[in-house]
Amino acid sequence: MTRYKLLIEYDGTPFAGWQVQTNGPSVQGALEAAVAQLDASKPGVRGAGRTDAGVHALGQVAHVDLAKEWPPDRLRAALNAHLRPAPITVLSAEPAPPEFDARFSARSRLYLYRILNRRAPPALERGKVWHVASPLNAEAMHSAAQGILGKHDFTTFRAAQCQAKSPDRTLDEFTVSRRGEEIHMEAKARSFLHNQVRSMVGSLKLVGEGVWPVDRMRKALDAHDRAACGPVAPPDGLYLVRVAY
Amino acid sequence: MTRYKLLIEYDGTPFAGWQVQTNGPSVQGALEAAVAQLDASKPGVRGAGRTDAGVHALGQVAHVDLAKEWPPDRLRAALNAHLRPAPITVLSAEPAPPEFDARFSARSRLYLYRILNRRAPPALERGKVWHVASPLNAEAMHSAAQGILGKHDFTTFRAAQCQAKSPDRTLDEFTVSRRGEEIHMEAKARSFLHNQVRSMVGSLKLVGEGVWPVDRMRKALDAHDRAACGPVAPPDGLYLVRVAY
Repeated sequence: MTRYKLLIEYDGTPFAGWQVQTNGPSVQGALEAAVAQLDASKPGVRGAGRTDAGVHALGQVAHVDLAKEWPPDRLRAALNAHLRPAPITVLSAEPAPPEFDARFSARSRLYLYRILNRRAPPALERGKVWHVASPLNAEAMHSAAQGILGKHDFTTFRAAQCQAKSPDRTLDEFTVSRRGEEIHMEAKARSFLHNQVRSMVGSLKLVGEGVWPVDRMRKALDAHDRAACGPVAPPDGLYLVRVAY
Repeated sequence: MTRYKLLIEYDGTPFAGWQVQTNGPSVQGALEAAVAQLDASKPGVRGAGRTDAGVHALGQVAHVDLAKEWPPDRLRAALNAHLRPAPITVLSAEPAPPEFDARFSARSRLYLYRILNRRAPPALERGKVWHVASPLNAEAMHSAAQGILGKHDFTTFRAAQCQAKSPDRTLDEFTVSRRGEEIHMEAKARSFLHNQVRSMVGSLKLVGEGVWPVDRMRKALDAHDRAACGPVAPPDGLYLVRVAY
Protein backbone atom coordinates (compact mmCIF):
# COMPACT_ATOMS: atom_id res chain seq x y z
CA MET A 1 0.00 0.00 0.00
CA THR A 2 1.18 3.53 -0.76
CA ARG A 3 -0.44 6.59 0.77
CA TYR A 4 -1.08 9.56 -1.54
CA LYS A 5 -1.76 13.17 -0.66
CA LEU A 6 -4.25 14.79 -3.04
CA LEU A 7 -4.69 18.55 -3.56
CA ILE A 8 -8.23 19.19 -4.77
CA GLU A 9 -10.26 22.06 -6.25
CA TYR A 10 -14.05 21.92 -6.46
CA ASP A 11 -17.17 23.93 -7.14
CA GLY A 12 -19.37 23.02 -4.17
CA THR A 13 -22.62 24.19 -5.81
CA PRO A 14 -23.99 20.78 -6.91
CA PHE A 15 -22.85 18.87 -3.82
CA ALA A 16 -24.48 18.11 -0.47
CA GLY A 17 -21.02 18.76 1.01
CA TRP A 18 -17.62 17.09 1.27
CA GLN A 19 -18.74 14.12 3.30
CA VAL A 20 -20.62 11.09 1.92
CA GLN A 21 -24.25 11.51 2.91
CA THR A 22 -27.65 10.16 2.09
CA ASN A 23 -29.28 13.40 0.90
CA GLY A 24 -27.29 14.01 -2.28
CA PRO A 25 -23.97 13.67 -4.12
CA SER A 26 -20.81 14.45 -2.16
CA VAL A 27 -17.30 15.45 -3.16
CA GLN A 28 -15.85 12.58 -1.12
CA GLY A 29 -18.24 10.13 -2.78
CA ALA A 30 -17.24 11.32 -6.28
CA LEU A 31 -13.55 10.98 -5.39
CA GLU A 32 -14.04 7.51 -3.92
CA ALA A 33 -15.89 6.42 -7.06
CA ALA A 34 -12.99 7.71 -9.20
CA VAL A 35 -10.44 5.92 -7.00
CA ALA A 36 -12.47 2.70 -7.24
CA GLN A 37 -11.93 2.77 -11.02
CA LEU A 38 -8.18 2.51 -10.42
CA ASP A 39 -8.04 0.24 -7.38
CA ALA A 40 -10.46 -2.60 -6.75
CA SER A 41 -9.86 -2.51 -2.98
CA LYS A 42 -12.07 0.64 -2.91
CA PRO A 43 -10.16 2.51 -0.25
CA GLY A 44 -11.64 5.55 1.46
CA VAL A 45 -10.66 9.15 0.76
CA ARG A 46 -10.15 11.23 3.93
CA GLY A 47 -10.30 15.02 3.68
CA ALA A 48 -8.79 17.81 5.79
CA GLY A 49 -11.94 19.93 5.94
CA ARG A 50 -15.53 18.67 5.89
CA THR A 51 -16.97 21.54 3.84
CA ASP A 52 -20.75 22.01 3.93
CA ALA A 53 -23.18 21.92 1.01
CA GLY A 54 -22.38 24.69 -1.50
CA VAL A 55 -18.95 25.50 -0.01
CA HIS A 56 -16.05 25.52 -2.50
CA ALA A 57 -12.39 24.52 -2.32
CA LEU A 58 -9.33 25.95 -4.01
CA GLY A 59 -7.01 23.66 -2.05
CA GLN A 60 -8.75 20.86 -0.14
CA VAL A 61 -6.31 18.11 0.90
CA ALA A 62 -7.18 14.43 1.19
CA HIS A 63 -5.30 11.16 1.58
CA VAL A 64 -5.94 7.76 0.05
CA ASP A 65 -4.14 4.38 0.18
CA LEU A 66 -3.58 2.58 -3.12
CA ALA A 67 -2.45 -1.00 -3.67
CA LYS A 68 0.05 -0.17 -6.40
CA GLU A 69 2.51 2.67 -6.89
CA TRP A 70 1.57 5.42 -9.31
CA PRO A 71 3.70 8.09 -10.99
CA PRO A 72 2.15 11.30 -9.50
CA ASP A 73 1.25 12.86 -12.88
CA ARG A 74 -0.41 9.68 -14.11
CA LEU A 75 -2.44 9.31 -10.92
CA ARG A 76 -3.65 12.92 -11.14
CA ALA A 77 -4.62 12.53 -14.81
CA ALA A 78 -6.35 9.18 -14.24
CA LEU A 79 -8.42 10.54 -11.32
CA ASN A 80 -9.39 13.63 -13.32
CA ALA A 81 -10.46 11.47 -16.27
CA HIS A 82 -12.73 9.42 -13.98
CA LEU A 83 -14.06 12.50 -12.16
CA ARG A 84 -15.49 14.03 -15.35
CA PRO A 85 -18.00 15.66 -15.64
CA ALA A 86 -18.16 16.48 -11.91
CA PRO A 87 -16.73 19.96 -11.13
CA ILE A 88 -13.90 18.46 -9.08
CA THR A 89 -10.29 18.47 -10.18
CA VAL A 90 -7.19 16.92 -8.63
CA LEU A 91 -4.48 19.58 -8.80
CA SER A 92 -1.71 17.27 -7.63
CA ALA A 93 -1.20 13.75 -6.27
CA GLU A 94 2.00 12.86 -4.45
CA PRO A 95 3.22 9.98 -2.29
CA ALA A 96 3.03 10.65 1.46
CA PRO A 97 4.43 8.81 4.50
CA PRO A 98 2.03 6.23 6.00
CA GLU A 99 1.54 8.35 9.14
CA PHE A 100 0.32 11.35 7.08
CA ASP A 101 -3.35 12.04 7.85
CA ALA A 102 -5.02 14.80 5.84
CA ARG A 103 -7.28 15.68 8.75
CA PHE A 104 -5.24 15.09 11.90
CA SER A 105 -1.80 16.11 10.61
CA ALA A 106 -3.07 19.56 9.52
CA ARG A 107 -1.42 22.45 11.36
CA SER A 108 -3.67 25.17 9.93
CA ARG A 109 -6.59 25.80 7.64
CA LEU A 110 -7.15 28.99 5.65
CA TYR A 111 -10.63 29.97 4.47
CA LEU A 112 -11.63 32.83 2.15
CA TYR A 113 -15.09 34.39 2.20
CA ARG A 114 -16.14 36.61 -0.74
CA ILE A 115 -18.95 39.17 -0.53
CA LEU A 116 -20.06 40.94 -3.72
CA ASN A 117 -20.94 44.39 -2.38
CA ARG A 118 -22.85 46.31 -5.05
CA ARG A 119 -26.46 47.05 -5.90
CA ALA A 120 -26.78 44.68 -8.87
CA PRO A 121 -26.88 40.92 -8.22
CA PRO A 122 -24.08 38.73 -9.61
CA ALA A 123 -24.39 37.24 -13.10
CA LEU A 124 -20.93 35.78 -13.69
CA GLU A 125 -20.16 34.92 -10.05
CA ARG A 126 -23.54 33.52 -9.09
CA GLY A 127 -23.16 30.81 -6.44
CA LYS A 128 -19.55 31.92 -5.87
CA VAL A 129 -20.15 35.05 -3.75
CA TRP A 130 -22.62 36.36 -1.16
CA HIS A 131 -24.46 39.32 -2.64
CA VAL A 132 -24.87 42.16 -0.13
CA ALA A 133 -26.45 45.25 -1.71
CA SER A 134 -26.05 47.69 1.20
CA PRO A 135 -22.65 49.43 1.33
CA LEU A 136 -20.27 47.74 3.79
CA ASN A 137 -17.52 49.44 5.78
CA ALA A 138 -14.58 47.05 5.37
CA GLU A 139 -12.40 48.95 7.86
CA ALA A 140 -15.00 48.61 10.62
CA MET A 141 -15.36 44.90 9.81
CA HIS A 142 -11.59 44.44 9.98
CA SER A 143 -11.41 46.20 13.38
CA ALA A 144 -14.19 44.01 14.75
CA ALA A 145 -12.45 40.88 13.43
CA GLN A 146 -9.22 41.79 15.23
CA GLY A 147 -11.16 41.87 18.50
CA ILE A 148 -11.83 38.12 18.46
CA LEU A 149 -8.34 36.84 17.53
CA GLY A 150 -6.71 34.33 19.85
CA LYS A 151 -7.90 31.37 21.93
CA HIS A 152 -11.53 31.58 23.03
CA ASP A 153 -14.69 29.61 23.66
CA PHE A 154 -16.41 30.13 20.26
CA THR A 155 -19.83 28.79 21.35
CA THR A 156 -21.50 31.93 19.91
CA PHE A 157 -20.18 31.16 16.42
CA ARG A 158 -20.82 27.40 16.50
CA ALA A 159 -23.65 25.50 14.80
CA ALA A 160 -26.10 23.67 17.09
CA GLN A 161 -25.20 20.38 15.36
CA CYS A 162 -21.42 20.85 15.85
CA GLN A 163 -19.89 17.59 17.07
CA ALA A 164 -16.58 18.92 18.41
CA LYS A 165 -15.88 17.98 22.04
CA SER A 166 -14.67 21.46 22.98
CA PRO A 167 -15.89 24.90 21.86
CA ASP A 168 -12.35 26.28 22.34
CA ARG A 169 -10.49 27.29 19.20
CA THR A 170 -7.55 29.58 18.42
CA LEU A 171 -8.23 32.09 15.66
CA ASP A 172 -4.80 33.04 14.28
CA GLU A 173 -5.78 35.48 11.52
CA PHE A 174 -9.02 37.15 10.48
CA THR A 175 -8.61 39.95 7.95
CA VAL A 176 -11.18 41.97 5.99
CA SER A 177 -10.27 44.00 2.91
CA ARG A 178 -12.05 45.60 -0.02
CA ARG A 179 -11.10 44.49 -3.57
CA GLY A 180 -13.11 46.71 -5.90
CA GLU A 181 -16.73 45.55 -5.67
CA GLU A 182 -15.81 42.64 -3.41
CA ILE A 183 -15.07 42.30 0.30
CA HIS A 184 -12.61 39.49 1.05
CA MET A 185 -12.35 37.90 4.46
CA GLU A 186 -9.57 35.44 5.30
CA ALA A 187 -9.68 33.33 8.44
CA LYS A 188 -6.86 31.06 9.58
CA ALA A 189 -6.81 28.60 12.49
CA ARG A 190 -5.58 25.11 13.32
CA SER A 191 -9.20 24.04 13.05
CA PHE A 192 -12.68 25.56 13.05
CA LEU A 193 -15.99 24.61 14.65
CA HIS A 194 -18.93 23.67 12.43
CA ASN A 195 -20.25 26.81 10.67
CA GLN A 196 -17.72 28.98 12.55
CA VAL A 197 -16.50 30.99 9.54
CA ARG A 198 -20.01 31.57 8.16
CA SER A 199 -21.26 32.53 11.64
CA MET A 200 -18.42 35.04 12.13
CA VAL A 201 -18.94 36.46 8.59
CA GLY A 202 -22.69 36.84 9.14
CA SER A 203 -22.01 38.84 12.30
CA LEU A 204 -19.27 40.95 10.68
CA LYS A 205 -21.69 41.87 7.90
CA LEU A 206 -23.89 43.54 10.56
CA VAL A 207 -20.82 45.53 11.67
CA GLY A 208 -20.14 46.50 8.03
CA GLU A 209 -23.71 47.78 7.66
CA GLY A 210 -23.45 49.78 10.88
CA VAL A 211 -26.21 47.70 12.50
CA TRP A 212 -23.66 46.47 15.08
CA PRO A 213 -21.03 48.76 16.59
CA VAL A 214 -17.46 47.44 16.18
CA ASP A 215 -17.17 46.25 19.82
CA ARG A 216 -20.32 44.14 19.63
CA MET A 217 -18.37 41.40 17.83
CA ARG A 218 -16.25 40.83 20.93
CA LYS A 219 -19.27 41.12 23.20
CA ALA A 220 -21.05 38.46 21.12
CA LEU A 221 -18.01 36.17 21.49
CA ASP A 222 -17.86 36.73 25.25
CA ALA A 223 -21.57 35.92 25.64
CA HIS A 224 -20.78 32.25 24.80
CA ASP A 225 -24.35 32.09 23.55
CA ARG A 226 -25.51 31.03 20.08
CA ALA A 227 -28.36 33.56 20.34
CA ALA A 228 -25.77 36.39 20.30
CA CYS A 229 -24.66 35.46 16.76
CA GLY A 230 -25.84 37.31 13.64
CA PRO A 231 -27.61 35.40 10.83
CA VAL A 232 -25.21 32.79 9.39
CA ALA A 233 -23.77 33.77 5.98
CA PRO A 234 -24.69 31.54 3.01
CA PRO A 235 -22.23 28.87 1.81
CA ASP A 236 -21.82 30.46 -1.68
CA GLY A 237 -18.98 32.80 -0.74
CA LEU A 238 -16.88 30.32 1.26
CA TYR A 239 -13.67 28.69 -0.06
CA LEU A 240 -11.24 26.31 1.65
CA VAL A 241 -8.05 27.87 0.30
CA ARG A 242 -5.12 26.06 1.90
CA VAL A 243 -4.27 23.43 4.47
CA ALA A 244 -0.78 23.55 5.97
CA TYR A 245 1.07 20.54 7.48
CA MET B 1 -39.73 58.62 -25.23
CA THR B 2 -36.53 58.63 -23.20
CA ARG B 3 -33.42 56.77 -24.29
CA TYR B 4 -31.55 54.79 -21.63
CA LYS B 5 -28.00 53.49 -21.67
CA LEU B 6 -27.69 50.11 -19.93
CA LEU B 7 -24.45 48.61 -18.60
CA ILE B 8 -24.82 44.82 -18.52
CA GLU B 9 -22.96 41.81 -17.10
CA TYR B 10 -23.75 38.27 -18.22
CA ASP B 11 -22.60 34.68 -18.14
CA GLY B 12 -22.77 33.67 -21.80
CA THR B 13 -22.74 29.92 -21.12
CA PRO B 14 -26.48 29.21 -21.52
CA PHE B 15 -27.04 31.60 -24.43
CA ALA B 16 -26.85 31.19 -28.21
CA GLY B 17 -25.23 34.65 -28.20
CA TRP B 18 -26.16 38.30 -27.72
CA GLN B 19 -28.39 38.58 -30.75
CA VAL B 20 -31.95 37.23 -30.96
CA GLN B 21 -31.80 34.02 -32.96
CA THR B 22 -33.89 30.98 -33.74
CA ASN B 23 -31.54 28.31 -32.36
CA GLY B 24 -31.71 29.14 -28.65
CA PRO B 25 -32.14 31.80 -25.96
CA SER B 26 -30.26 35.07 -26.46
CA VAL B 27 -29.14 37.80 -24.08
CA GLN B 28 -30.88 40.44 -26.20
CA GLY B 29 -34.09 38.37 -26.18
CA ALA B 30 -34.01 38.04 -22.37
CA LEU B 31 -33.46 41.81 -22.01
CA GLU B 32 -36.25 42.64 -24.46
CA ALA B 33 -38.61 40.33 -22.54
CA ALA B 34 -37.70 42.11 -19.28
CA VAL B 35 -38.21 45.54 -20.89
CA ALA B 36 -41.59 44.42 -22.24
CA GLN B 37 -42.73 43.86 -18.63
CA LEU B 38 -42.17 47.58 -17.98
CA ASP B 39 -43.22 49.12 -21.27
CA ALA B 40 -46.05 47.77 -23.43
CA SER B 41 -44.58 49.34 -26.60
CA LYS B 42 -41.98 46.51 -26.53
CA PRO B 43 -39.05 48.53 -27.78
CA GLY B 44 -35.89 46.82 -29.01
CA VAL B 45 -32.63 46.64 -27.06
CA ARG B 46 -29.54 47.45 -29.17
CA GLY B 47 -26.13 46.28 -27.97
CA ALA B 48 -22.60 47.56 -28.60
CA GLY B 49 -21.08 44.14 -29.23
CA ARG B 50 -22.81 41.11 -30.74
CA THR B 51 -21.07 38.49 -28.61
CA ASP B 52 -21.18 34.87 -29.84
CA ALA B 53 -22.61 31.84 -28.06
CA GLY B 54 -20.78 31.19 -24.78
CA VAL B 55 -19.00 34.58 -24.74
CA HIS B 56 -19.37 36.58 -21.50
CA ALA B 57 -19.68 40.28 -20.69
CA LEU B 58 -18.46 42.30 -17.73
CA GLY B 59 -19.56 45.57 -19.35
CA GLN B 60 -21.76 45.19 -22.41
CA VAL B 61 -23.59 48.43 -23.28
CA ALA B 62 -27.05 48.65 -24.83
CA HIS B 63 -29.66 51.32 -25.42
CA VAL B 64 -33.43 51.18 -25.19
CA ASP B 65 -36.24 53.74 -25.61
CA LEU B 66 -38.94 53.81 -22.95
CA ALA B 67 -42.28 55.62 -23.05
CA LYS B 68 -42.03 56.98 -19.50
CA GLU B 69 -39.21 58.40 -17.45
CA TRP B 70 -37.60 56.16 -14.85
CA PRO B 71 -35.36 57.02 -11.90
CA PRO B 72 -32.13 55.18 -12.88
CA ASP B 73 -31.97 53.01 -9.74
CA ARG B 74 -35.58 51.94 -10.05
CA LEU B 75 -35.16 51.04 -13.73
CA ARG B 76 -32.09 48.93 -12.95
CA ALA B 77 -33.83 47.13 -10.08
CA ALA B 78 -37.02 46.52 -12.11
CA LEU B 79 -35.07 45.07 -15.05
CA ASN B 80 -33.04 42.82 -12.73
CA ALA B 81 -36.21 41.58 -11.04
CA HIS B 82 -37.68 40.62 -14.43
CA LEU B 83 -34.41 39.10 -15.66
CA ARG B 84 -34.30 36.51 -12.87
CA PRO B 85 -33.28 33.69 -13.02
CA ALA B 86 -31.28 34.35 -16.22
CA PRO B 87 -27.56 35.01 -15.48
CA ILE B 88 -27.83 38.57 -16.77
CA THR B 89 -27.62 41.63 -14.55
CA VAL B 90 -28.06 45.32 -15.31
CA LEU B 91 -25.23 47.12 -13.50
CA SER B 92 -26.55 50.59 -14.26
CA ALA B 93 -29.28 52.32 -16.25
CA GLU B 94 -29.00 56.01 -17.06
CA PRO B 95 -30.75 58.47 -19.37
CA ALA B 96 -28.88 59.16 -22.62
CA PRO B 97 -29.35 61.76 -25.38
CA PRO B 98 -31.60 60.60 -28.26
CA GLU B 99 -28.64 60.47 -30.65
CA PHE B 100 -26.75 58.00 -28.42
CA ASP B 101 -26.41 54.64 -30.17
CA ALA B 102 -24.79 51.83 -28.18
CA ARG B 103 -23.33 50.29 -31.34
CA PHE B 104 -22.51 53.19 -33.61
CA SER B 105 -21.46 55.79 -31.00
CA ALA B 106 -18.83 53.44 -29.54
CA ARG B 107 -15.25 54.73 -29.82
CA SER B 108 -13.57 51.56 -28.56
CA ARG B 109 -14.23 48.06 -27.31
CA LEU B 110 -12.01 46.19 -24.85
CA TYR B 111 -12.05 42.39 -24.71
CA LEU B 112 -10.34 40.10 -22.18
CA TYR B 113 -9.40 36.51 -22.98
CA ARG B 114 -8.52 34.16 -20.09
CA ILE B 115 -6.49 30.96 -20.53
CA LEU B 116 -6.11 28.61 -17.55
CA ASN B 117 -2.58 27.29 -18.13
CA ARG B 118 -2.00 24.31 -15.84
CA ARG B 119 -2.15 20.53 -16.11
CA ALA B 120 -5.39 20.03 -14.17
CA PRO B 121 -8.69 21.06 -15.83
CA PRO B 122 -10.77 23.85 -14.22
CA ALA B 123 -13.37 22.97 -11.58
CA LEU B 124 -14.38 26.41 -10.27
CA GLU B 125 -13.85 28.33 -13.54
CA ARG B 126 -15.33 25.80 -15.93
CA GLY B 127 -16.89 27.56 -18.93
CA LYS B 128 -15.12 30.79 -17.91
CA VAL B 129 -11.59 30.02 -19.17
CA TRP B 130 -9.89 28.11 -21.97
CA HIS B 131 -7.92 25.24 -20.45
CA VAL B 132 -4.50 24.81 -22.09
CA ALA B 133 -2.41 22.13 -20.36
CA SER B 134 0.90 22.68 -22.18
CA PRO B 135 3.08 25.43 -20.66
CA LEU B 136 2.71 28.74 -22.52
CA ASN B 137 5.40 31.40 -22.93
CA ALA B 138 3.48 34.63 -22.21
CA GLU B 139 6.43 36.85 -23.18
CA ALA B 140 6.64 35.27 -26.66
CA MET B 141 2.87 35.66 -27.06
CA HIS B 142 3.09 39.32 -26.06
CA SER B 143 5.90 39.97 -28.57
CA ALA B 144 3.90 38.31 -31.35
CA ALA B 145 0.83 40.36 -30.42
CA GLN B 146 2.78 43.63 -30.69
CA GLY B 147 3.66 42.71 -34.28
CA ILE B 148 0.06 43.03 -35.49
CA LEU B 149 -0.89 46.33 -33.80
CA GLY B 150 -2.16 49.12 -36.03
CA LYS B 151 -4.39 49.34 -39.10
CA HIS B 152 -4.40 46.22 -41.27
CA ASP B 153 -6.50 43.96 -43.44
CA PHE B 154 -7.44 41.32 -40.83
CA THR B 155 -8.84 38.76 -43.33
CA THR B 156 -6.67 36.03 -41.76
CA PHE B 157 -8.38 36.50 -38.39
CA ARG B 158 -11.95 36.88 -39.69
CA ALA B 159 -14.72 34.27 -39.63
CA ALA B 160 -16.02 33.09 -43.02
CA GLN B 161 -19.51 34.30 -42.04
CA CYS B 162 -18.33 37.83 -41.08
CA GLN B 163 -20.69 40.42 -42.55
CA ALA B 164 -18.48 43.51 -42.27
CA LYS B 165 -18.02 45.40 -45.56
CA SER B 166 -14.27 45.88 -45.06
CA PRO B 167 -11.66 43.56 -43.51
CA ASP B 168 -9.67 46.62 -42.37
CA ARG B 169 -9.52 47.23 -38.64
CA THR B 170 -7.20 49.16 -36.32
CA LEU B 171 -5.91 47.13 -33.38
CA ASP B 172 -4.96 49.70 -30.72
CA GLU B 173 -3.80 47.43 -27.91
CA PHE B 174 -3.11 43.70 -27.61
CA THR B 175 -1.30 42.67 -24.44
CA VAL B 176 -0.50 39.25 -23.00
CA SER B 177 0.48 38.73 -19.36
CA ARG B 178 0.69 35.87 -16.90
CA ARG B 179 -1.37 36.08 -13.68
CA GLY B 180 -0.42 33.00 -11.67
CA GLU B 181 -1.97 30.00 -13.42
CA GLU B 182 -3.77 32.21 -15.93
CA ILE B 183 -2.71 33.98 -19.11
CA HIS B 184 -4.68 37.20 -19.71
CA MET B 185 -4.97 38.78 -23.14
CA GLU B 186 -6.53 42.21 -23.61
CA ALA B 187 -7.44 43.51 -27.06
CA LYS B 188 -8.72 47.02 -27.73
CA ALA B 189 -10.01 48.49 -31.01
CA ARG B 190 -12.77 50.74 -32.28
CA SER B 191 -14.43 47.58 -33.57
CA PHE B 192 -13.55 43.96 -34.31
CA LEU B 193 -14.40 41.56 -37.14
CA HIS B 194 -16.48 38.47 -36.40
CA ASN B 195 -14.37 35.96 -34.41
CA GLN B 196 -11.33 38.27 -34.66
CA VAL B 197 -10.28 38.07 -30.99
CA ARG B 198 -10.76 34.29 -30.78
CA SER B 199 -8.88 33.84 -34.08
CA MET B 200 -5.96 35.96 -32.87
CA VAL B 201 -5.91 34.17 -29.49
CA GLY B 202 -5.96 30.72 -31.14
CA SER B 203 -2.92 31.71 -33.22
CA LEU B 204 -1.09 33.28 -30.24
CA LYS B 205 -1.55 30.03 -28.31
CA LEU B 206 0.57 28.31 -30.99
CA VAL B 207 3.25 30.95 -30.41
CA GLY B 208 3.03 30.33 -26.65
CA GLU B 209 3.55 26.60 -27.17
CA GLY B 210 6.53 27.24 -29.43
CA VAL B 211 4.72 25.64 -32.39
CA TRP B 212 4.84 29.00 -34.19
CA PRO B 213 7.90 31.29 -34.04
CA VAL B 214 7.07 34.81 -32.81
CA ASP B 215 7.24 36.38 -36.30
CA ARG B 216 4.74 33.94 -37.78
CA MET B 217 1.88 35.95 -36.23
CA ARG B 218 2.73 38.91 -38.47
CA LYS B 219 3.30 36.65 -41.47
CA ALA B 220 -0.13 35.11 -40.92
CA LEU B 221 -1.67 38.62 -40.83
CA ASP B 222 0.15 39.65 -44.02
CA ALA B 223 -1.06 36.51 -45.85
CA HIS B 224 -4.63 37.94 -45.82
CA ASP B 225 -5.75 34.33 -45.96
CA ARG B 226 -8.09 32.59 -43.51
CA ALA B 227 -6.09 29.36 -44.02
CA ALA B 228 -3.08 31.04 -42.36
CA CYS B 229 -4.97 31.35 -39.03
CA GLY B 230 -4.49 28.92 -36.13
CA PRO B 231 -7.48 27.00 -34.73
CA VAL B 232 -10.02 29.49 -33.32
CA ALA B 233 -10.04 29.66 -29.50
CA PRO B 234 -13.26 28.54 -27.75
CA PRO B 235 -15.77 31.17 -26.54
CA ASP B 236 -15.42 30.20 -22.85
CA GLY B 237 -12.48 32.50 -22.09
CA LEU B 238 -13.78 35.63 -23.84
CA TYR B 239 -15.25 38.66 -22.02
CA LEU B 240 -16.49 41.98 -23.39
CA VAL B 241 -15.01 44.18 -20.65
CA ARG B 242 -15.69 47.80 -21.60
CA VAL B 243 -17.14 49.96 -24.33
CA ALA B 244 -15.99 53.58 -24.47
CA TYR B 245 -17.96 56.46 -26.01
